[in-house]
Amino acid sequence: MTLPNKPRGTQDIYPPRSLIYQKIQQIVTQILHKNNYQPIIFPTFEAKELFTSSLGSTTDIIHKEMYTFADYTSVDIEDKKGRQLALRPEGTASTVRLVCQNKLIETSCFKLYYWANMFRYERPQKGRYREFWQLGVELVNAKGVVADYQILKLVADILYGLGIRDFTFNLNYLGDSKTKEKYKNELKNFVKKDNPDLCEDCQRRGKTNPLRILDCLLCRNRFHFPSYKNAWSEKDKNYINELNQILDKFTLPYQPDYYLVRGLDYYTGLVFEVSPKGEKALLGGGRYDNLYQEIGKRNFPAIGFALGIERLIDYLETSQPRSELLNFSSRVDVFFFAITGKVYLDILTWKEKLMAFQLVVDYNLEVTKIKHLPNIINYYQPKILVVLGEKELKSKNIVLRDCRKRQDFLVEREKIIEWIKDYLKLDS
Amino acid sequence: MTLPNKPRGTQDIYPPRSLIYQKIQQIVTQILHKNNYQPIIFPTFEAKELFTSSLGSTTDIIHKEMYTFADYTSVDIEDKKGRQLALRPEGTASTVRLVCQNKLIETSCFKLYYWANMFRYERPQKGRYREFWQLGVELVNAKGVVADYQILKLVADILYGLGIRDFTFNLNYLGDSKTKEKYKNELKNFVKKDNPDLCEDCQRRGKTNPLRILDCLLCRNRFHFPSYKNAWSEKDKNYINELNQILDKFTLPYQPDYYLVRGLDYYTGLVFEVSPKGEKALLGGGRYDNLYQEIGKRNFPAIGFALGIERLIDYLETSQPRSELLNFSSRVDVFFFAITGKVYLDILTWKEKLMAFQLVVDYNLEVTKIKHLPNIINYYQPKILVVLGEKELKSKNIVLRDCRKRQDFLVEREKIIEWIKDYLKLDS
Repeated sequence: MTLPNKPRGTQDIYPPRSLIYQKIQQIVTQILHKNNYQPIIFPTFEAKELFTSSLGSTTDIIHKEMYTFADYTSVDIEDKKGRQLALRPEGTASTVRLVCQNKLIETSCFKLYYWANMFRYERPQKGRYREFWQLGVELVNAKGVVADYQILKLVADILYGLGIRDFTFNLNYLGDSKTKEKYKNELKNFVKKDNPDLCEDCQRRGKTNPLRILDCLLCRNRFHFPSYKNAWSEKDKNYINELNQILDKFTLPYQPDYYLVRGLDYYTGLVFEVSPKGEKALLGGGRYDNLYQEIGKRNFPAIGFALGIERLIDYLETSQPRSELLNFSSRVDVFFFAITGKVYLDILTWKEKLMAFQLVVDYNLEVTKIKHLPNIINYYQPKILVVLGEKELKSKNIVLRDCRKRQDFLVEREKIIEWIKDYLKLDS
Repeated sequence: MTLPNKPRGTQDIYPPRSLIYQKIQQIVTQILHKNNYQPIIFPTFEAKELFTSSLGSTTDIIHKEMYTFADYTSVDIEDKKGRQLALRPEGTASTVRLVCQNKLIETSCFKLYYWANMFRYERPQKGRYREFWQLGVELVNAKGVVADYQILKLVADILYGLGIRDFTFNLNYLGDSKTKEKYKNELKNFVKKDNPDLCEDCQRRGKTNPLRILDCLLCRNRFHFPSYKNAWSEKDKNYINELNQILDKFTLPYQPDYYLVRGLDYYTGLVFEVSPKGEKALLGGGRYDNLYQEIGKRNFPAIGFALGIERLIDYLETSQPRSELLNFSSRVDVFFFAITGKVYLDILTWKEKLMAFQLVVDYNLEVTKIKHLPNIINYYQPKILVVLGEKELKSKNIVLRDCRKRQDFLVEREKIIEWIKDYLKLDS
């Protein structure tokens, strides 16, 4: 057979890039735990109607980008029984379902996160994949400015933790259904009156879901749409003032963006994005106070955000000075190089003893000719190298080489574990 | 709308169970890194033919259990253009594709692992889900007894690391295509001669893929099939002796199982399972020296294994004494309880300062009546509780309560960060 390629728009992630994913995951997980957020894992696919009913059936995600399939196996795929399933395009709808179906939250708010892959059938391009990774965070059953601030502060702590200091929040406030309705009408009137030459997609949106016109960067940059600010009620303004006071007090960097609406229908209240220096948004989120009621019949106001891991890594790779997250030092502490099969009992014994310490220990699995040693050193970059042949099998002392200093040490066979431990300055 | 349930056979994993997944992942990741194994992430779905051609088209996984769908969106699903994709049922085929397509491995072996979800359309039952999690490990481009031992030892280290000591490897040796062919013929002859009353599935298997009869625990327990041992060549026996010597020397617990063939067609040489005390297998694996050649046209002998996370947790939950992995101590170090909105500036300032330490700090997001305090304490189980009302706003001293000892401390407002840090014995 011919090896089939990976599906279009998907990724193969291997070292060193996979190690960057891992490092980022470790950093954000630690910050989230310190803030008392806890992990959830939901299914990769859900009933299709979960997404259509929560994200809005006319949004791009639902309209164009869902991977759907039927809930039956390949053998009876012709039957077309079975309900429609869809690979999750985002995590909020699944979180709502998980919380409601399992009757979580009794006495307090629920602080959840997921590190999960998402699926959208988009045209593949730089930084945009059909399967991509997200950190999603959801603060459920909490309303008010303190909750909003907690989420923005958590975003800032995560970005700081990843070494990103040069960012600003873009903020908008969509308000409740009354405010949203008011703005939608202003937008409709504008489109009617000014009759702008909207793109094809936006002409459709104008009829079905006018707010979505603002998701179109093309049209948004070409026309002077009405500012969301004009739709705010006194109550909205008071809320925004109160939030801004906290942001000022704790010096979180922000600026208003009166056209930010974030491509999904479920947002109410605060919405935000972080886009470093005019780049595409690294992350975005907002408040969705009605979604739990609408799909789960529970009155849980909520706010959340999602950080795109591929976008983040692309950003780290281009930012100056070079991010420390991209640096990987020598990964092997000790490498045993066998040039005769008889030394394996020694190697395996030593390795087992060294495993008690925080050391990376490796060895060649088959006897290798000494001429390949330079390749091995180059590939594994060990801190300490031990070459083992016939001579070393019988001798009382073994040569240990510090490959970085290019220095050799003659060590008694019985003491090499102690010596390595001390030399690499480790505690047992 | 009515909230759709999660799809049949899938899981919602939330605290505390999600924390067990996380702890297991951390433990195994650390052990793998010490052994110089590195992570990979491959797509959730692949071209269907990748799996059919590598796993064997008559295996149960391919024959009955694949989630397949077409590579087009919901809007044009009627077209039936597009190639067939499948959610991965296991990770080895994807690993082979990833390694070959990206031309990895030049000078040495490649030691890879993945923590990934897999999909099989099985009848849901205890410990068996349609979406489940696996740790997969693959040692690529390495042959011989030392490589086989490395994998078995790694399995043992992982089980020890997870607190599991009471296990034995079940080992069999399938040998090269010649040995396999010989055994298949013996099996065919047995079925022909003894004419056992095989189950329906196995009657089909007898014609298409006789080795798969042994996957059927039902038939395997009912009939005295020929032992694989009889098919071994002298070369096979020497190899097995050499491996057993190493296992004895390093005291890995093992026993032969001459009927173990492991449900996939690609195995050659050593195959193994770990099934604690007659339970279903927690993990299994084996050598597959021809798979890279067959689907990737590269000569990479390889061996690997997969550990089922759900089975593992089920095992931990029933094993005695109770596994420490299942214990979670109080997760909140400090909880601030606001009973007036005016104290939030203090709380947010203190929290920010405490974030510099390895502490979990939390607070109620909206002003709460004092009568709810018992619920809050019960839910968050904080080590230190600070109740903040009008009185505390003006007073020079604040009461900090050790909730475990039920003891109060009066601490100067300016010193509470220091005090908490010292009291919980932390370094900055």
